[in-house]
Amino acid sequence: MVVKIGINGFGTIGRRVADAVALQPDMKLVGIVKTRPDYKTKIAIRKNCDVYSSDAESMRLFEKEGVPIKGTLNDLLKEVDIIVEAAPKGVGERNKPIYEKAGVKAIFEGGEKARVADVSFVAQCNYDKAYGKRFVRSVSCNTTGICRTLHAIDGAFGVKKARVVLVRRAVDPDDIKRGPVNAIVPDPITLPSHHGPDVNTVLPELPIVTVALKVPSTHIHVHSLSVELKSKNVSEKGVVDVFEKTPRVVLISGDKDNIRSTGQVIDWARDLGRSRGDVYEACVWSDSISMVDGELYYFQAIHSEAIVVPENMDAIRASLKIMSRDESIKKTDRALNVLSSW
Amino acid sequence: MVVKIGINGFGTIGRRVADAVALQPDMKLVGIVKTRPDYKTKIAIRKNCDVYSSDAESMRLFEKEGVPIKGTLNDLLKEVDIIVEAAPKGVGERNKPIYEKAGVKAIFEGGEKARVADVSFVAQCNYDKAYGKRFVRSVSCNTTGICRTLHAIDGAFGVKKARVVLVRRAVDPDDIKRGPVNAIVPDPITLPSHHGPDVNTVLPELPIVTVALKVPSTHIHVHSLSVELKSKNVSEKGVVDVFEKTPRVVLISGDKDNIRSTGQVIDWARDLGRSRGDVYEACVWSDSISMVDGELYYFQAIHSEAIVVPENMDAIRASLKIMSRDESIKKTDRALNVLSSW
Repeated sequence: MVVKIGINGFGTIGRRVADAVALQPDMKLVGIVKTRPDYKTKIAIRKNCDVYSSDAESMRLFEKEGVPIKGTLNDLLKEVDIIVEAAPKGVGERNKPIYEKAGVKAIFEGGEKARVADVSFVAQCNYDKAYGKRFVRSVSCNTTGICRTLHAIDGAFGVKKARVVLVRRAVDPDDIKRGPVNAIVPDPITLPSHHGPDVNTVLPELPIVTVALKVPSTHIHVHSLSVELKSKNVSEKGVVDVFEKTPRVVLISGDKDNIRSTGQVIDWARDLGRSRGDVYEACVWSDSISMVDGELYYFQAIHSEAIVVPENMDAIRASLKIMSRDESIKKTDRALNVLSSW
Repeated sequence: MVVKIGINGFGTIGRRVADAVALQPDMKLVGIVKTRPDYKTKIAIRKNCDVYSSDAESMRLFEKEGVPIKGTLNDLLKEVDIIVEAAPKGVGERNKPIYEKAGVKAIFEGGEKARVADVSFVAQCNYDKAYGKRFVRSVSCNTTGICRTLHAIDGAFGVKKARVVLVRRAVDPDDIKRGPVNAIVPDPITLPSHHGPDVNTVLPELPIVTVALKVPSTHIHVHSLSVELKSKNVSEKGVVDVFEKTPRVVLISGDKDNIRSTGQVIDWARDLGRSRGDVYEACVWSDSISMVDGELYYFQAIHSEAIVVPENMDAIRASLKIMSRDESIKKTDRALNVLSSW
């Protein structure tokens, strides 16, 4: 069986989901929706991807530029089993009634509020909860990264309390409107940040407090985690063993690999031949894994643009009841060459 | 009584200490030591400050450029009661035997190892321990900032355990050799960082774990603190009250003052008319002070170039037994216009 996918929005996430769908043997990309023609649209067309406009009005923008258009969003919805809603933050909630009316399932992204979907989703944490659900929300990059590693630690040792400081890349590389250029920005200044509650949309029982700052960088967040554990006498080796067995979590090393910053993480991913230099894995610095006074500390790097791409594949399969969690993760990871060890 | 001060090294700290000494009514700056002539030297001469070379060899560099020199370090040492050792990290330890031989007291900076001095110093924490000591070390900017606020919190509520994540400006503004330009660098990757043990050189009993990252910014560190307290039922208002009474800790607000980043902290200090835009205070964001699950969280901004300047004034007075802690802090803060509320 091959399921038919549409993608509404073709920015940071939409473009990556489109390419990832094209690599899945059980999925077919029917088309993508854009509001206006630009370089992203032209590259989609070069890849033989059908482009739809968001509405009749935006269609005229494409016609004016001579960019071939298949129809509007409503036309696309007639052709697909499910739509991946990857328009800017907040637009998804406004579009939901359109999908409801068309009787099409939808995957939302982490920019949308949790209430938009039936379930907030990270494949390895709660795939089964999304099974057959009409609206599934693939949570944000930060939430996905935290859920992946803390879910594994919680399963192995029990999390008594997790404190996470997110040092966030400020903007994606194509965003030249916003800063900061040379400053550190507590964001939000009021504490705690929304990331903890967002993790709880996926892992409701996990005791977690988060704070966040943004810094002048355009690639990859770094999280500093300190985790009080329920188990006693956990060793650093024991934590390494857990992460080595966890899908979509990869151990990198400053000392052994000379991966000492987010700059080297991106460079490593480009060397791996990844499309766009994408890092689908939560990357934990093995050197950083430390037990201090019985508490676990580690750093992880999270590629904001890419980490949710595998989750989108799995969310599609869960919503459409195509296969089980383990089968879907395996299929996605093989198609995208996602690493679980390195 | 006016005490005679020499300064060895005229970089980030030395220049600021020189200007601060010139503002203290009980201190006289005899001269500063440079290894070679540059813009910093020329500005010193414009300020009628006598310049000494580090040795006979470096003296020739000055003579070649026609920059007037009073003598060498050894000549300066004959004229002073105390020397502030502000040469690059590690040089201080090498210079210590020179000061011992000359029978001159010395203030070291935080770049030096704790063992170089008889005591590691933050004025409001342990002034009396430095009283009359021959060698006193004014600890680093990060350690000074952490000590100021946690000492106050510990005094008021008792610190059960403090966890601090330091998001560090990578380099000072004049350092154009090092990065990063566009990356987040766990530094050190191995955990915990040395800052916790360094805090313990001043506050030996304080239970603290620190981790640190550096980011592409040249002004001001931001610390994210989470503090388990011994007292129960501490309110956010209670914490605000403590900081309002603490010298050299100032509350700033994102909401009320529109100080939302380190960029605005520097701009605020420039507007205050501070020399070089210096921020002598540990700046705590009042909006960030939060009690979450009985634990205290806050953000603070620490100006790496400037925060230790007042401590250097007090360390001089403590070492030379000029006056008591409270008198010295008051005198320093009046001369430098240090704020304790805003």
